Amino acid sequence: MRLSRSFLPTLKETPSDAQIVSHRLMLRAGLVRQTASGIYTWLPAGLKVLRNIANIVREEQDRVGAQEVLMATIQSADLWKRSGRYDAYGPEMLRIKDRHERELLFGPTNEEVITDVVGQELKSYKELPQVLYQIQWKFRDEIRPRFGVMRGREFYMKDGYGFDIDYKGAVDTYRKMMLSYLRTFQRLGVRAVPMVADTGPIGGDLSHEFLILAPTGESGVFYDGALDTLDWLADPVDVDKSEDLEKFFNNVSSYYAATDEKHDDKAWESVPVERRREGRGIEVAHIFYFGTKYTKSMDITVAGPDGAPVHPEMGSYGIGVSRLVGAIIEASHDEAGIIWPDNVAPFKAVILNLKVGDETCDTLCEALYAKAPERFLYDDRSDRAGAKFADADLMGHPWQIIVGPRGAKEGKVELKRRATGERFELTVNEALTKVLSA
Amino acid sequence: MRLSRSFLPTLKETPSDAQIVSHRLMLRAGLVRQTASGIYTWLPAGLKVLRNIANIVREEQDRVGAQEVLMATIQSADLWKRSGRYDAYGPEMLRIKDRHERELLFGPTNEEVITDVVGQELKSYKELPQVLYQIQWKFRDEIRPRFGVMRGREFYMKDGYGFDIDYKGAVDTYRKMMLSYLRTFQRLGVRAVPMVADTGPIGGDLSHEFLILAPTGESGVFYDGALDTLDWLADPVDVDKSEDLEKFFNNVSSYYAATDEKHDDKAWESVPVERRREGRGIEVAHIFYFGTKYTKSMDITVAGPDGAPVHPEMGSYGIGVSRLVGAIIEASHDEAGIIWPDNVAPFKAVILNLKVGDETCDTLCEALYAKAPERFLYDDRSDRAGAKFADADLMGHPWQIIVGPRGAKEGKVELKRRATGERFELTVNEALTKVLSA
Repeated sequence: MRLSRSFLPTLKETPSDAQIVSHRLMLRAGLVRQTASGIYTWLPAGLKVLRNIANIVREEQDRVGAQEVLMATIQSADLWKRSGRYDAYGPEMLRIKDRHERELLFGPTNEEVITDVVGQELKSYKELPQVLYQIQWKFRDEIRPRFGVMRGREFYMKDGYGFDIDYKGAVDTYRKMMLSYLRTFQRLGVRAVPMVADTGPIGGDLSHEFLILAPTGESGVFYDGALDTLDWLADPVDVDKSEDLEKFFNNVSSYYAATDEKHDDKAWESVPVERRREGRGIEVAHIFYFGTKYTKSMDITVAGPDGAPVHPEMGSYGIGVSRLVGAIIEASHDEAGIIWPDNVAPFKAVILNLKVGDETCDTLCEALYAKAPERFLYDDRSDRAGAKFADADLMGHPWQIIVGPRGAKEGKVELKRRATGERFELTVNEALTKVLSA
Repeated sequence: MRLSRSFLPTLKETPSDAQIVSHRLMLRAGLVRQTASGIYTWLPAGLKVLRNIANIVREEQDRVGAQEVLMATIQSADLWKRSGRYDAYGPEMLRIKDRHERELLFGPTNEEVITDVVGQELKSYKELPQVLYQIQWKFRDEIRPRFGVMRGREFYMKDGYGFDIDYKGAVDTYRKMMLSYLRTFQRLGVRAVPMVADTGPIGGDLSHEFLILAPTGESGVFYDGALDTLDWLADPVDVDKSEDLEKFFNNVSSYYAATDEKHDDKAWESVPVERRREGRGIEVAHIFYFGTKYTKSMDITVAGPDGAPVHPEMGSYGIGVSRLVGAIIEASHDEAGIIWPDNVAPFKAVILNLKVGDETCDTLCEALYAKAPERFLYDDRSDRAGAKFADADLMGHPWQIIVGPRGAKEGKVELKRRATGERFELTVNEALTKVLSA
């Protein structure tokens, strides 16, 4: 994209109403603009980030056999009356009446809709297990929306729902999802640590929150730093084998990790001192087994192996996609701006033409840009170099390809890595290879 | 995807409440399920179609320099009060009050939001032109939703908005969008003919609807069949050149095309008889120049070349993405089911294993499937052949790769083209090449 023609408005001043760094940087880097309290428009660069995250989530869900569907944002209140949650849900639910005075709502979550759809179609245990997920906008009418997209009202979320014929199957599904989530976060370039969460009346250990370490996190967290070094992408778990899933789950669970609510001083002391990680964490995902809660209340059954009706066992699996945009920035920025992980960045690199109008610079930049116009942002504005550097650092492109008149004459560019500040003097081809293979 | 493990529920019976063929086939082929009046859940196959369409729309928008953004579904009523449309809009607008009794609405369209966002950022004529678009869910509270996704309440739409400094620029943008739309529909495998539509008080000829010919269309249409033979993908229009755009627009406009409202018997007679196409059409897109209507009412200006404030000229550019799923089926089906155009189909081909359990058949099918598991549906169910053929025809996969025990022994398969019924006896590699290169 050519910066001169694009809609990527950056701000020099820090917006006064933004309390946390991710909110400030998202406004300053031109990722979002607020259009109503807790409601945002995603500008081109912000949308690219949102979509990059969603695509990685999707690939990792598909990889473990989950299937994507898409439910409407608007739901009928009748379904929630069937499950018994309509009256129980608080004022965070956006309740709506249509022109015929029928009660609707903007879905804050989708257990009812998916249980209804699946219940109408599935007849036999042979059709299970099924994991269905969607990535869709949801609404929670927060009393005091704040922190930008971290606690907005309309938010983008991946929500998945597992259906199994029995507890054993549901446990396998749960573990499969945990692996999928760990792989997802690793690919996103952040570490999100799974920590046991409340299961309510259901009990057991099948509820985990995933938290990203960042100073603005809402919970205190304590965990074994060994978790940060495990490579889930290289782990040879066969997700179709119960034994493999069990081994994987036991391995994860063997490391200490807890929020302050569940923290256990005694267990903490058994973690070697040099591996103790303590700080604050932002919740970005939650996986939760809840058995037959909805299949019983909504009376959904399939025929079991002996022909008798069985209420399928369910779990729900959520990732806050729009929240992650903020959380990643909270975990990855410096004084100058955002530092995007490679897989999340809106552009792989920015090409900084330091002397627009100089034929050598222009020719070299155009040739570079033509190699991958979708992956490069080309700063072809006739601004001074200082302003270009500041915007590049603010927007957080993983690489800056700096083209000045002196180097250009020799076919050379300077390559800067945003995360480390390292600089390399390279030929055009060397720079291209380094950037595009990252 | 393996059919035995997937959520692709087909129906043998025709649902009694579905009045038109696309609605019936979308239910029978397992593309959608209704969850409330005029509100649908998109099942895996339906979502793939929706996304294939959206991706082609996106590529063709990006190609002409439009930039994608994403606005929230929920808007503040305040913006609509600024433009003066809040009271004027009828009961189709879903009006909502939040927990603080503030007036919100589910966006039926987004002129106000985009004008507000752009107005806050753009300062100078030098930053124009801009075309911003989104593909997002919208809501119109139809009094009597019907025809499935063709006239639903929650619908998926691409809406784009052009901003230019003057009329001449706005005309260029309009023509660029018309070309982009013609290319989009050609790639989708349907012909949508642009027809002059009402411009209201603005006048001029810068309003076109695009209609797909189908017996259930809501308008009568008359057009010159020569339009069906023009190849927009091969047209060498340079969209950055006004002269090219003008030539292109004059060429399109030189062919007769009109809905019954605008039909002119005299002009019709000048179309050679053998080229006259007459029938009914479904509106799937609308492009519309409306000048300074919103920039004036919302008081948005940029500095013109002489420094004086100028209200930018606008146009809006819509494509009904979810509606297109229905419209394409209306235009492309037979007694047995859907006939998907190649670029839209949820799967490139279905592999029909006629004898699951037979080692030769199973081995050959698995080998075929492994070549492109994302693009093939593998019917590995142990049903009888007749049921498999019926489902394959119903779901409308462009190709059927039929694997029976006799052929399999010789490494041969039968390839059936859904659209024509042609059958080819081929080796496995020949079949693969034919299917994957289509």
